[in-house]
Amino acid sequence: MCGIVGYIGDKDVVPVLINGLKKLEYRGYDSAGVALFGRDSLKVVKCKGRLAALEEKVNGDMPEGYIGIGHTRWATHGEPNDVNSHPHISQSGNIAVVHNGIIENYMKLKEFLISKGYEFVSETDTEVVAHLVEYHYKGDLVQAVMESVNELEGSYALGVICRDCQDKFVAARKDSPLIVGLGNGENFIASDIPAILEHTRDIYILEDKEIVSLTKDEVSIFNIHGAEVKKEIFHVDWDVACAEKAGYEHFMMKEMCEEPKVVRDTINPRIEGFGVNLGNTGITAEALKDIDKINIVACGTASHAGIVGKYIIEKLARIPVEVDVASEFRYREPIISRRNLVIIISQSGETIDTLFALREAKKRGARTLAVVNVVGSSIAREADDVLYTWAGPEIAVASTKAYNTQLAAMYLIALDLACKKGSIDSETAKGIIDSLKAAPDAIEEVLGNCEAIQKFASQHYNAKSIFFIGRGLDYALSMEGSLKLKEISYIHSEAYAGGELKHGTIALIEKGTLVVCSMTQKGLLEKMISNIKEVKARGAVVMAITQQSNEEVWKAADIVIEIPDIDSIIAPIVAITPMQLFAYYMALQKGCDVDKPRNLAKSVTVE
Amino acid sequence: MCGIVGYIGDKDVVPVLINGLKKLEYRGYDSAGVALFGRDSLKVVKCKGRLAALEEKVNGDMPEGYIGIGHTRWATHGEPNDVNSHPHISQSGNIAVVHNGIIENYMKLKEFLISKGYEFVSETDTEVVAHLVEYHYKGDLVQAVMESVNELEGSYALGVICRDCQDKFVAARKDSPLIVGLGNGENFIASDIPAILEHTRDIYILEDKEIVSLTKDEVSIFNIHGAEVKKEIFHVDWDVACAEKAGYEHFMMKEMCEEPKVVRDTINPRIEGFGVNLGNTGITAEALKDIDKINIVACGTASHAGIVGKYIIEKLARIPVEVDVASEFRYREPIISRRNLVIIISQSGETIDTLFALREAKKRGARTLAVVNVVGSSIAREADDVLYTWAGPEIAVASTKAYNTQLAAMYLIALDLACKKGSIDSETAKGIIDSLKAAPDAIEEVLGNCEAIQKFASQHYNAKSIFFIGRGLDYALSMEGSLKLKEISYIHSEAYAGGELKHGTIALIEKGTLVVCSMTQKGLLEKMISNIKEVKARGAVVMAITQQSNEEVWKAADIVIEIPDIDSIIAPIVAITPMQLFAYYMALQKGCDVDKPRNLAKSVTVE
Repeated sequence: MCGIVGYIGDKDVVPVLINGLKKLEYRGYDSAGVALFGRDSLKVVKCKGRLAALEEKVNGDMPEGYIGIGHTRWATHGEPNDVNSHPHISQSGNIAVVHNGIIENYMKLKEFLISKGYEFVSETDTEVVAHLVEYHYKGDLVQAVMESVNELEGSYALGVICRDCQDKFVAARKDSPLIVGLGNGENFIASDIPAILEHTRDIYILEDKEIVSLTKDEVSIFNIHGAEVKKEIFHVDWDVACAEKAGYEHFMMKEMCEEPKVVRDTINPRIEGFGVNLGNTGITAEALKDIDKINIVACGTASHAGIVGKYIIEKLARIPVEVDVASEFRYREPIISRRNLVIIISQSGETIDTLFALREAKKRGARTLAVVNVVGSSIAREADDVLYTWAGPEIAVASTKAYNTQLAAMYLIALDLACKKGSIDSETAKGIIDSLKAAPDAIEEVLGNCEAIQKFASQHYNAKSIFFIGRGLDYALSMEGSLKLKEISYIHSEAYAGGELKHGTIALIEKGTLVVCSMTQKGLLEKMISNIKEVKARGAVVMAITQQSNEEVWKAADIVIEIPDIDSIIAPIVAITPMQLFAYYMALQKGCDVDKPRNLAKSVTVE
Repeated sequence: MCGIVGYIGDKDVVPVLINGLKKLEYRGYDSAGVALFGRDSLKVVKCKGRLAALEEKVNGDMPEGYIGIGHTRWATHGEPNDVNSHPHISQSGNIAVVHNGIIENYMKLKEFLISKGYEFVSETDTEVVAHLVEYHYKGDLVQAVMESVNELEGSYALGVICRDCQDKFVAARKDSPLIVGLGNGENFIASDIPAILEHTRDIYILEDKEIVSLTKDEVSIFNIHGAEVKKEIFHVDWDVACAEKAGYEHFMMKEMCEEPKVVRDTINPRIEGFGVNLGNTGITAEALKDIDKINIVACGTASHAGIVGKYIIEKLARIPVEVDVASEFRYREPIISRRNLVIIISQSGETIDTLFALREAKKRGARTLAVVNVVGSSIAREADDVLYTWAGPEIAVASTKAYNTQLAAMYLIALDLACKKGSIDSETAKGIIDSLKAAPDAIEEVLGNCEAIQKFASQHYNAKSIFFIGRGLDYALSMEGSLKLKEISYIHSEAYAGGELKHGTIALIEKGTLVVCSMTQKGLLEKMISNIKEVKARGAVVMAITQQSNEEVWKAADIVIEIPDIDSIIAPIVAITPMQLFAYYMALQKGCDVDKPRNLAKSVTVE
C-alpha cells in the first residue's frame, strides 16, 4: 500500500508524477501529494482524498520542474488528512521524502531528533525520515540517505529530493517494492511497473537495502556499505493497453471477462497429453518422498485459493496440507522442517505478510514454491521455485481473474503431485484434466448469462447481513464469495460451513436474511438441502449456485444460479465467477466505487 | 435439538410433561405439544411458540391422564407452526409419536404410505413414523415400533403411545440421546436428565437401536432383533438445584459466576505436585511415540476451545495439530490413521456432527480422546478415553463456563503431552501450572469488575457490525468472543486475525465501527497496536482487553478492559470472561432473551 513515483528529466514533471500515481492508485487513495523544484524553492502540494483532488489543487499552481516525487497514501499512522499526507519536508525545507512502509523505531528516532531541536508537524512515521536525512546531510545526498536508512527499522521504499542538490534524487528500499525505470535522458522510480510503462519498458528491480542515485542520464545503485552494485536490465513484455479499461465501465468487469482467457493461459502450456508438466517448477518424484506435509501460506483472496488447494491436494495426492494466513504463520512458531513443502500464494508477489512468511519458512529449512502473478516480484525472486499465474496485470483492487488462475495453479500442482506419487491412476488424471480444460468455456457461459444475478442483486442490495454457506470445496469457495462482497459493497457477509451455522450463527437468520448457498459438490447435496431447510424455516431467502442438472436444488432454494455441468472437483473455478458477478452488481446498485473500495489497497506492503 | 419426555404412572400427566419440557427448553423452543389418554380418546394439544403458550392452551382443557408424551421443537423440516408441531398422530388416531432427529428416507417412506392410502397433514419427516407404526401395528406395540425403526434411516429418539394399548408406551433411539428414568410405580423417558430429576435420580442410558417398553412398574429393553438387554442403573450424583437459577436473573450470569469454581474443579484433581496426572485418560509416553499428529474435532464454542488447544499443544508439546469443525471433518475424507490422536470436544457429549466425526475417526483407526461435560453421554461412551470437564449442568443455550473448562482441559492435555515427550523442562511446566492454578482467582477478579463493560455495552448496543481482532491465541479467543455476541445479541460480529483485516474486510470499517481487540500476548502487542492504528485511522472505536501492566495499550485504544497480570499462554482462560460479559450486557440492553436466543438449541442433535 502507498504508491510512490519519482522523476528526473526534461519533461514537465507534474503530469508525469500525476499520471504515474493514477496507475498506482490501487495501492491506496486516502490522500496524495507531490514535491518538486521550481527555480530555487522546493514546492510541495498535498491533500486528503483521491488523486483527482490533488490534480485540481496543483492545476496552474505548480512551477515547471524537472525533478520531483509523488505519493498516494494508504494510512497506517495517523488519519488521512492534509498534514499527514506525503511528501513530508524537513525542518529547513531542504529535504522532501515520500515513503511506503512502516518505520518501526520511529518513536525512538523522533525523541532523538526532538532532542536535536527538530519540530514535528504530523503524526506520521515518515516525517522522521525527512528530518533524519537533513540531520545527516553534509553535501552528499547519497551518503545522507545511506546513513539514515542504516538507522531505520521496519520497511520502506523511499524517494528523497534535496533543494541543495538539484541534479539528482535518491531512492532506497527494504521490504517494500521499488523499481527504477530507465529512459532516454530521463529516469524514474516507482512502486510498480504500470506507473512508468508509458515512458519505458526497461527497468531495474531493486533488492532490499539498495540505494539508488538518479540523474537525467545516469543511474547508480549501491549496497548498504556504499559499494556499487551492477544489475541486469529487466524488459517488460506487456504494454499499457493491458492496464487500461478497454471500453469496460470498470476494471473489475474487464478482468472478470478475461477469466476464460487467463485460465486457459495458465493451464494449457502446462498440460502435455494426459499429464501435467510444470517444467522446472515441478518437484521430482524422488524429492517428493522427503515431503511429509504441505503448508500453504497466503493472505486474503490468495489464502482462499489455498483452502481450495488443501481440499484438492489432500483428495488427489493424499498429502496432509495446512493453510495459514501469513500474518499468523510467522508468529506462531510453526512446526516446519526440511520435510515440509511450503506453497506461498500472492498475486503481486509483494504482499509483505506473505513475504515474511516465506522467509520464516526458508529459515526453518522448508522447500518453498511461490504461486505468483508478477514476474520478478520479491516473492518470485526469493522462493526456491515459482509457478506463475498468467493472469496479466490486475488493476481492480478486488481480485477476480487472479483468483481463478490461482485455483488453476492449485489444480496443476495437485495433479502433478498425485501423478508423481501414484495416488491416482492415469484414467482419473485424464478425467480431471479434461474437466479442467473445459472450465474456461464454462466460465464463458456463466459470464454470458449474468442477467439473473444482476436482477437478484437489484432486489437485495439493501441487505445488511448476508451469509454464504457450503460444505467441503463449496465452503472454501464461500469464503471467497463472501470476501468479494464485503470488499466492494461494504455489506457484512460471512462464510460458514453448511453444518456449522446451527452451532450459533443461525441466531442471526431472520425473515428476509439472504443466504447464498454454494452447492457444486454432488455427494453433499442432500446435506446442504437439509441446511437450506433449516435457514428457510427461520425465514431466510436462499440463492443457490449449482450445476444445471442438480434439479433437486430448485425445489429447495428461492433462486438458482446455474453453472454448466462439470465435475464437482473442478466446479469451484467456474462457480466463483457468479459470486464475483454478484458482488459486482450489488456494489454497483449501492453506488460504490467498484474498482477502488474505501480503505483498501491492492498490494498490501505493510504488516 | 428437540426435547422429548414421556411418562407412565399415577400422577397427573400434564404437569409432569410440562415441567419436564421446561427443563429441556434449551434443546429447542419453536413449538411444543403433548399427547395423552383421557378415557377412551387420545388427546393431543400442540402449538407454535414457547412452552408458555402450550401451558396456556392445555390449562383446564386436558383430561387427567396417566400416560403421555411431550415435545419441544427446533425446526428442521417445515417451518414452526401448529400443524408441524409434535406429537404427530396416525391416520386412525390410534398412534401418537414425538421425535427428535431427522428421518433421512422420509420421502421414500411417505410415497409408500401414500400408496397404502395414508394422508399426510404436515410437512414434517416425523409424521411418517406415526403412520408407519400404525401400518405395522397388529396388537403388539413393541413389535410395531421394532418393525418401523428397522425401516428408518437417519437419526431418532422416539416416544410412541397407542390408544389400543393403554398399559404401556414404547421408545427407541438411534444417534439422538434418550434416557429412561426409573421411579416407584412410575417410569419416564427424556432427552436429558434434568427433565426427570425432580422425580428420580436412577436412570438407564439407552444405546443406539435399543427399544424400550415402559409400564408403571416395569421397564424392558430390547435390541433391534427383539432380544432383551440387561442394563446397569446409572445414579445421577447432582441434584435439581444445579439446574436452577439460584437467585440470578439468568442462567448465563449464574454460569459465568460459577467459572472460578468449575475451572478449579477441572484443574485441581489433575495436578500432582509440579506435574499433571490425567489418570486413566492420559496417553503413556510409550504410546505417544506412535502419534505423529493430533486432530481436534468439535462444533461451535467447543471448536474454538480446540483452536486454543492447537496453539498450546503445538507450542508446548511440538506435535502438529489440525482443528476441524465436525460437519466438515466427516465428509472431507480426512487423512487419518493409527498414528493420529483425535480429540473430540463436546459439552453435551451428544452433538451429532461431533459424534459422527468420532465414529469416522475410529473407523480410520485413530486413537480417540473425548473432552466432554456430561457423564455417560454418547461421545463419552464411544471414545477410547474420556477427560471430563467438571462444569456441572449448563442450562443457558450460549455456553460460558463449559468453554472455560474446555480450555482448562486443553492446558492439562498440552502439559501432559509436553512432559511425557520431554519438550518442556520441569521448571517451565511448574511455571505454567502455577499460572493455571492462579487463573480461577483472576476470573473472580474480572467478574467483580464488570461495571466498565456494562457501561460500554450501554453505549454501543445499537451497533450493526462489530469486529473482533487478535493475533495468535488472541485470534482463537476472538472467535469465541464474536460467537458469543452473535448468539445472544444477534449483532453480526466477526473475528479476524489482526494482520488479516487489511486484506479485504477493513473496507467495512467506518466512523464509529466497534472493534474489540484481544491483546493478551505480550510478544505480539506492538503488531496489534499497529493494527489498532489502521482501524482507528478509518474511524473505528476500539475496546481492548489486556493485562493490567500493558500500559501502552491505553494510548492506542478508546477503552481498555483489564485482566490481572497473568502469563500470555494462560491468559485466554481469563480473557474470555470479559467477552462473555460484554455479550451478556449487549443482549440485555437490546432486550434479547439471553438464556434462550432465537433459532438456537443447546445440544445440537441434528446434522
